[in-house]
Parts: sequence; structure tokens; C-alpha cells
Amino acid sequence: MKVGKLSLDIMAKYIFSRSGAYDPAVLVGPAAGEDAAVVRIRGRHLVAHVDPISGSVELLGWLAVNVASNDVAVRGVRPRWAMPTVLLPPSADEAVLDKITSQMDSAARELGVAIVGGHTEVTTAVTRPVVVMAVAGEGDRYITTGGARPGDIVLMTKSAALEAAAILATDFGDEMRRKGIPEDVLKAAAGFIKQISVVREALAISDLATSMHDPTEGGIAAGLAEMAHASGASIEADPSRIPVSREAEALCKAAGLDPLRTLSSGSLLATVPEEKVEEALDRLRKLGVSAVAIGRVIARASFLVKIGDIEITNPYIRDKFFELFQ
Amino acid sequence: MKVGKLSLDIMAKYIFSRSGAYDPAVLVGPAAGEDAAVVRIRGRHLVAHVDPISGSVELLGWLAVNVASNDVAVRGVRPRWAMPTVLLPPSADEAVLDKITSQMDSAARELGVAIVGGHTEVTTAVTRPVVVMAVAGEGDRYITTGGARPGDIVLMTKSAALEAAAILATDFGDEMRRKGIPEDVLKAAAGFIKQISVVREALAISDLATSMHDPTEGGIAAGLAEMAHASGASIEADPSRIPVSREAEALCKAAGLDPLRTLSSGSLLATVPEEKVEEALDRLRKLGVSAVAIGRVIARASFLVKIGDIEITNPYIRDKFFELFQ
Repeated sequence: MKVGKLSLDIMAKYIFSRSGAYDPAVLVGPAAGEDAAVVRIRGRHLVAHVDPISGSVELLGWLAVNVASNDVAVRGVRPRWAMPTVLLPPSADEAVLDKITSQMDSAARELGVAIVGGHTEVTTAVTRPVVVMAVAGEGDRYITTGGARPGDIVLMTKSAALEAAAILATDFGDEMRRKGIPEDVLKAAAGFIKQISVVREALAISDLATSMHDPTEGGIAAGLAEMAHASGASIEADPSRIPVSREAEALCKAAGLDPLRTLSSGSLLATVPEEKVEEALDRLRKLGVSAVAIGRVIARASFLVKIGDIEITNPYIRDKFFELFQ
Repeated sequence: MKVGKLSLDIMAKYIFSRSGAYDPAVLVGPAAGEDAAVVRIRGRHLVAHVDPISGSVELLGWLAVNVASNDVAVRGVRPRWAMPTVLLPPSADEAVLDKITSQMDSAARELGVAIVGGHTEVTTAVTRPVVVMAVAGEGDRYITTGGARPGDIVLMTKSAALEAAAILATDFGDEMRRKGIPEDVLKAAAGFIKQISVVREALAISDLATSMHDPTEGGIAAGLAEMAHASGASIEADPSRIPVSREAEALCKAAGLDPLRTLSSGSLLATVPEEKVEEALDRLRKLGVSAVAIGRVIARASFLVKIGDIEITNPYIRDKFFELFQ
């Protein structure tokens, strides 16, 4: 099978229809775009998410904690408990393990997340280090990817392809240099890793938003398509309003990637009723997080997402980032 | 680094000391032998565990659900919610995915576990299919691996190396045939996979036990050593009382494995105060699960575990099973 996520029809055939026993406590189960599960425990809502990171070695620990925590936070619930599974190839030395766990520790401390368990092993089953991160939190309410309503405004924080640019500038630094990317661009983009968390901004506006999403694989385009798909609606976005940094632009171009269609953790997508947009933007400004309105939710149209002239009809968007490893 | 789990000193240096933020709701966090975390949510106890399965392709989905569920059940809490991460190499076809998810579905249904989320992707980071399974449940009380007290009797259900024998008979069937293992032995051992769950038996005696454990890597020897280590005690076991089936004996011998030191999920280890042993054995008998007393917990001695003449002083026991993949 092709590298990357599975297509929707494959997911429907082999994944969504095979979800084990029925449990009425499960409020959000497996569904496209709904990455975090929600189960009820005595009137509280446990929100849990699991995500593998295999696309970076240099930033692996940091990304694993932040990306998985983002997916809990976009439910409007604070991520609190993490369980990493670290799989190392026999070629890995202690320095690799040291880097991964020290990054996980500092990322978790910064977010207020406790690492409560996990598993680490050296195995010939992996060719490069992989971290599968499970993160959970609990709260009295939650929102879903599928809550967007026609008329809502789509907000986006920071800029596109932050995650891809940070990885390109570190794991692929030498290759990028050879392709003529200047040192100052590499240095600035490597620093994007500090912007990968959307936890603070997601929690700041969760009571105003109808849906939130952390766009990872497939980028802003896939993130919008997943929100539209899960909400039974469509989204029209204005490409001229989607922020892309000059660093992400340059690095993506050098790597043959579209900055709107590649790893974009760190940029929160949220749909907010029109009358609450000013309040949401104001709160984000006070946090020091840049944010703009990039589009609007409309009733389900012939497309899921329209970005300028480009119509997207399938939430499955191939992210060419992973082809860099082939 | 060497294939397998990490040694205790490496774990202490890079894992246990790097557990992110402090959270008073965490009742059981990362520690050797304590595989399932316990956190408090409004007076209830959430028990969560994560485990990768990379040592089998044929039985992958079935093992992933059962082994991870076992680790929740040995806390005395019913496993209820599962989140699998399925990582497939590009060489995998739909039939492999089909086998994995249909096994996960049927194992989960049998246990009453709902699959609430997860992630599936095709990645060059793995050389063979890997499933990392997170399972959680909740209850009003829990027990730990570290609760064994001197004087307690050590009970063991079923027989040693059930898991290793089942995998050898399926994934390594042709090799075992070449080594002269007869068909009837292969067939019987392949059927051991149906005995891999300890959920029913663990829940049946959890109110009598001071500690329970599901021995996986390193087998019965490692399981006993982990219980002793976590409990600050030692265990004396009588090797003549540890059941080993003739199938496990033959297959382990052919594969160069010690049946007491290799994959043994399916066999519950439990420590029970002497006055409750008859009641525990009686309940297990009524479930149709064979069980015997194999030893006794004593005050911490110069060894962690003594099996006959053999003294084990380190809970880290190398499981040669994983060398079969090299």
C-alpha cells in the first residue's frame, strides 16, 4: 500500500466498521477527522488521543508530546496525561534515546502534562525511531471536529506548514542547504518548533468555537476538508488570507511541497459563530498568538473545501512530506 | 542498542526521571513492572496501559487487544476502551490490514472492549506490521504489581510460554516443521492463542489478590521478578510446580528458548494471602481455568526470585524470542 494515511474507503471497509463491542459510555468513537475519542466517566468526559510520529528524528520527542496534546486540546479539554511508546532500531544509541526522552520531558513540563506510563523497546521492526503517543485529559464539556455550522467564520492561528518547515530545517538541513536555502531561513524555521503547540490558544477560545482542529498530515487543506466532512458542511477559504511565512514558502518549494498541503501542527483551525469572532480574535491577540479569519462555513456544496479556484472533494489529501523518506 | 526491553539502569537514567509535570491525580506513574498507569478522575480510578506488539504478524491484531487488556485487568479493573495505532510497511497489502483489524474487532468484542479511536498508516519507518495498543478502564479500586506481602502465596494460571508457543506454531510454523515438530503439536500450540486472555480470571480473584501480573517478555521468571522488585520483597518458586505444556516445551526447545523465560501472556500470576488461597483456586476452577500455587513471597532476600537452585537478582530478563527476528 502507498505510504501515508489510508484513504476514506479503505478506512470505512477495514477500520470504522470494526470497532469492537458497543459501549454507551463512548460519546465520540472512530470517525474520519475525529482524532480524539470521548468517553463518559461518572459525568465527566475523558478525552483521549493517540498519534505516531515517524517523520522526524531530531524533533521526535518534542513533536510527539505536542502534536498529541494538540488533539486533546482541540476538544476544549486540557491535556494532562501522556503514555509514550518509544520504538528504536538496533542502530540507535543512548544519545538518541536521551534526545527523545529529554524532549518529551521538557515538552510535557511546559504543557503541564504528566507522563504516567509507556513502553520503550529496541526492535528490528523499525528502521528509524518512532514514538506513538497517547494523551488524555478530562473535562465537563467537549467540542468536536464535526460541530461547524453554516455561517460560522473559519479562524486560523499562526501560519501554514510550521511543522513541515521546522522538520525540513533540522532533519533535512544539509539537503536544504545544498538546495540553496540560506542559513538565516534555516535558523528561523528551526525555531518554528517552539510554536508547534496550540494548547493555550485552543483552550482560550474553546467556549466560543463550534469546532476546532489541529491540521497535521495534508496541512491546512486537509484540516479544513476534515472539518467540513465531519460537520456535514463545506468551507470556502480565501487563499490570499492564509498566512504562509517566507521560510515555510522557501523550504516547501525546495522540498517540492505545497505549504497548504503539508504538516501544519501549530496552526489552530477553529470555526466560530460570526458574532463571537471579535471576542475570539481579541483573546488570541492577548495571548500573543496571531490569528486571522480565512473563510466561512457554508451548507454542504458540491465540494468540501474551496480555496480560491481549487475545489477539494475528498478529505483524504496525500501529503508528499512522507515521500521524502523513500 | 540491543534488541528488547531496556535494562533497569537505562530506564532509571532516561525514562523514570523524565516524567513531565507533577500531577497529584496520578496514583501510579512510570515504574519498573508497573505497566498500567492509574489516575484519579472525580473519585474513580482510570487505569490505562500501552503496549506494542511487533513479534507476530499472523496473530498481531488478536494479541494486541488481548495483551494490552490483560495489563488493565491485572489492576482489578475491566478493560473497556482501546485505541490501536497500526503501522504497516509499504510492502503490506490490504489482506494484512484485513487480518489485523478483523482480529482486533473480534478480540475486542469477546472482551467487551470498544475501539474508540486510533491511527493507521503506511510508513517506511517499519519493516513489518506493528500495532501499539492503548487500553483503558475505570473502577472504584485497583491493585498494583507492587502489593505482594511476605507470606502471600503465588498462584499461576494455565501454563508457561503459551504466547511464545502460539506464535512459534503460526508465524514460525514452517521452521518448526523443518525442526521436526509434529503437526499435532503445531496445531495444539496454535490453539493456545485462544487462552491468551487473563481478563476473566484476573477480575474473578482481584478482591482476594494483593498483586497480579501478566507475564509477557521474559516470561514467568521476569513476571515473578517484576512482582518481587515492585513489592520490595522476594519470591521463592518451586520449578516442579510450574506447569509447562508438552507443546510449549517442544517448541521452545526447537527455537532455543527457555519456556520459563519467554513470552507468557495468558498465564496470570497473582499473590494471595494464605487464608484466601482456597477461595481463589475455587473461583478459578469454577471459571474452568487451571491454577496452582507455585511459590511464596518472602521478605526481601539477596535474590529477587529463586526458582529451585536458580537465583534471579535483576528484574530485567533477556527474552531470546526477539532474536528470532534477527
